[in-house]
Amino acid sequence: MLNIVLYEPEIALNTGNIGRSAVLSGSRLHLIRPFSFRLDDKLIKKAGMDYWKNVDLVVHDSYDDFLKYKKDGRLFFASTKSSKYYTEVDFKDGDYIMFGPESRGIPESILFDDNSPGVNIKIPMIETSLRSLNLANSVNIILFEALRQLNFPHMK
Amino acid sequence: MLNIVLYEPEIALNTGNIGRSAVLSGSRLHLIRPFSFRLDDKLIKKAGMDYWKNVDLVVHDSYDDFLKYKKDGRLFFASTKSSKYYTEVDFKDGDYIMFGPESRGIPESILFDDNSPGVNIKIPMIETSLRSLNLANSVNIILFEALRQLNFPHMK
Repeated sequence: MLNIVLYEPEIALNTGNIGRSAVLSGSRLHLIRPFSFRLDDKLIKKAGMDYWKNVDLVVHDSYDDFLKYKKDGRLFFASTKSSKYYTEVDFKDGDYIMFGPESRGIPESILFDDNSPGVNIKIPMIETSLRSLNLANSVNIILFEALRQLNFPHMK
Repeated sequence: MLNIVLYEPEIALNTGNIGRSAVLSGSRLHLIRPFSFRLDDKLIKKAGMDYWKNVDLVVHDSYDDFLKYKKDGRLFFASTKSSKYYTEVDFKDGDYIMFGPESRGIPESILFDDNSPGVNIKIPMIETSLRSLNLANSVNIILFEALRQLNFPHMK
């Protein structure tokens, strides 16, 4: 099983949407507080539709709490500030893939920590002045690349 | 360049979101009428953000008009009713990947036409009573698999 981790998510609609993909891919969804919405926000249920109640959800009070929870699990940080493509790493069952808040991504203090517990990866894009995909789309792109590498376990 | 084709899309927010991914991946977006929203709907611009004005957009009045336009371009139909995985086909530059309306997908009359101009593909999922990913997420999953196969042209 793969683990999707949303660090301080801001937009309920995206989290709902990502929950739907988690259910349909047999993945676990982790949310790291604080978030900018309530977990009973109607937009989560709107985007998550009938899937939301089936999400395998773990809520962590802080990033440190999350790190303690995951123990030795391998961690990937998805960020536009990374240099390695998400297709250049070999994903394994049990991996954690973390994504930052919509407006600012994973903080540099985490990405570029000398004792970083993770590997930085990115989705390549055409160079534009803006350049960042919607969060739910980014999660799905990397999640399904990992699932492809694992031969889509239990899926058909 | 890859071509994303939305057949009779229903939800402005999804189309806006897909436009953003089209810009950031150097892909062209085709919309086949009728759609359930106006092209100046504020939700398109909300989801497409500052990207929407840069979308390489072609609007077709009908499916037949689209088929005439694409001429000999290779066409893939993304549908939960397909049996071949989207990772089992070899994508080429210039390919067209078509997605149906959010509530019902591509009609069976197109998918299972004896003289079908396309190849049916699907995204595998865990079996549930519901089972269908958000449209924008589905587009991004298949689009980025095609881009991966093409070594992310002009992207970094």
